[in-house]
Amino acid sequence: MSTQLGFVVSGDKAELRRVPVPVPAEDECVVRVLIANICNTDLEIMKGYMGFAGVVGHEFVGIVEAAPVGHEALVGRRVVGDINLACGDVGRCQTCACGADRARNHCPARTVLGILNKDGTYQERITLPARNLHVVPDNVSSENAAFVEPLAAAFRIVEQGLVSPTDRVAIVGDGKLGILIAEVLGRAQAAAGGPRVVVVGRHPEKMALISSAAAVDAVASHGALPSRAAAFDVVVDATGSPAGLDLSRSLCRPLGTLVLKSTCAAGSDFNTAPFVVDEIRMVGSRCGPFPPALDLLASGLDLTPLITATFPLVEANAAVAMAAARGTVKVQIRVHDDPVPSSLS
Amino acid sequence: MSTQLGFVVSGDKAELRRVPVPVPAEDECVVRVLIANICNTDLEIMKGYMGFAGVVGHEFVGIVEAAPVGHEALVGRRVVGDINLACGDVGRCQTCACGADRARNHCPARTVLGILNKDGTYQERITLPARNLHVVPDNVSSENAAFVEPLAAAFRIVEQGLVSPTDRVAIVGDGKLGILIAEVLGRAQAAAGGPRVVVVGRHPEKMALISSAAAVDAVASHGALPSRAAAFDVVVDATGSPAGLDLSRSLCRPLGTLVLKSTCAAGSDFNTAPFVVDEIRMVGSRCGPFPPALDLLASGLDLTPLITATFPLVEANAAVAMAAARGTVKVQIRVHDDPVPSSLS
Repeated sequence: MSTQLGFVVSGDKAELRRVPVPVPAEDECVVRVLIANICNTDLEIMKGYMGFAGVVGHEFVGIVEAAPVGHEALVGRRVVGDINLACGDVGRCQTCACGADRARNHCPARTVLGILNKDGTYQERITLPARNLHVVPDNVSSENAAFVEPLAAAFRIVEQGLVSPTDRVAIVGDGKLGILIAEVLGRAQAAAGGPRVVVVGRHPEKMALISSAAAVDAVASHGALPSRAAAFDVVVDATGSPAGLDLSRSLCRPLGTLVLKSTCAAGSDFNTAPFVVDEIRMVGSRCGPFPPALDLLASGLDLTPLITATFPLVEANAAVAMAAARGTVKVQIRVHDDPVPSSLS
Repeated sequence: MSTQLGFVVSGDKAELRRVPVPVPAEDECVVRVLIANICNTDLEIMKGYMGFAGVVGHEFVGIVEAAPVGHEALVGRRVVGDINLACGDVGRCQTCACGADRARNHCPARTVLGILNKDGTYQERITLPARNLHVVPDNVSSENAAFVEPLAAAFRIVEQGLVSPTDRVAIVGDGKLGILIAEVLGRAQAAAGGPRVVVVGRHPEKMALISSAAAVDAVASHGALPSRAAAFDVVVDATGSPAGLDLSRSLCRPLGTLVLKSTCAAGSDFNTAPFVVDEIRMVGSRCGPFPPALDLLASGLDLTPLITATFPLVEANAAVAMAAARGTVKVQIRVHDDPVPSSLS
């Protein structure tokens, strides 16, 4: 059995060790990982969220090394990948039979890369079904391509139809996810002729990373928040904290929409009464469409200013420690170097 | 100053005493209360909810004793009343300017009968704007008419467009509000050719009070609940408890809708992660339209089997104690006798 290096979570332990090179299922490609990004969900998983055991990580860019029959054209291509593996048994699974992409993300028998019964991206090679892969345009660097999965999650809010062109939108939380949501919703509202999007956060230096093309105003959460009279039509909670959720709710106007975008906001004092009295709509939002995320990067959005540091896979422990540290935005794990372009080799 | 008997909440005290007879504002009628119903919200208010001080109670039927110019035809008529008093200042209030009835319920300067800065119905006479009143059809008894306000709240779910004809609907909670929601949604789904509505509760004897015209199946919550595979498209939480909310969420399919219908479900262990992972939509729902509620009662729905006991106003303390007791459904306070029909007088 051939082995490779992988960062494995098991119970409350997380460590680098030799793991078997994964064997692709019939419909799967083998992908050599170039870069794996560290997501807050990964850090939660290391603390026990989802009860996951295996190789952690779900954000990546890689190169296809092997592909099933009919998908040979993928070999050698740089790809990103949708992390949800629906069972696809349209004869038995009602969810898969309904066909819609995002509905299939809810297949009750699904596995999820690095999150649910499927080894993830903090290792040298992964396997994913060919249908999950999207080829990265040549003009998008691997450093940027590694952001496609969370950027797609930001586009999910648009796909869900939760924002109208005239809506006043606030994003609470200036972490990496909040910033990506600001890039997407700021542009969407500007393109639709809507009002500027407001980002409410604690870190002016992080909010300053939002590109000028996103029509966004940054507001410090400890400063003067918009008053109740100026409440927002749509508020996106990207804080992952009970206090952040409470702030998000308080910024939402009666009959408005609160989008829940953080996976781990267990609250100890969550009170549903204001939701009833103000008839607020709270909508969960998870994984989204890759094509618009790739298009946005191809059109020139540069997310590399968000990269606080890059570590090789052998220093995964240090990478994880930095990802969890205050002030860090994004940490990348460089698993393999990008191939030298064939024209130069 | 003339006085009358009223049941007054102040801090953690609630007691019967002499209170001033309320003086109607320019647009208000004086209404002699016939019956005041006790609602769970009233019991919560007596524990401090909303920080209310004054005469409690918001469900009622009464007789108009005096009306402003232009509304004299209301005098002598039996009425029920919408409990929200929007400021109505369309020149200054954006909410009132938008015009829609239910949006106006969210007027930031509103008062609410027996709940927010407006004395309620556990007293001999109340005042309400003429525009809030709805005349009760002659064939609806006062005992039934006193249920119009919570029945209208059940219709609010329909008005919000939260239920489609093909939706599998579950109502969690077999208290008085759960039963009224079952009457409304059971009929709505049956009329639309949809599936039977399921009520999940702890009290078979309460669920047996749901009229046979509502196409409803009762399921004991401690018995065999529908499995995850049979999850519901729409779940209405009418429990007012954190455990009930959690059960409601677990019965809701991915991408489904959870309707929050209880005002006081503060939870100590509420976890938002399942809402994100399953992309559930949670929608608060408060006050609703009176006309369909009156129509349903006029068409023959008899809610008097829900009345556990009736007390005179002088025994309001005993009425409140019974309302809070296990096994009680609805308690009515009979404030004044119905007038003898004029044809008999």
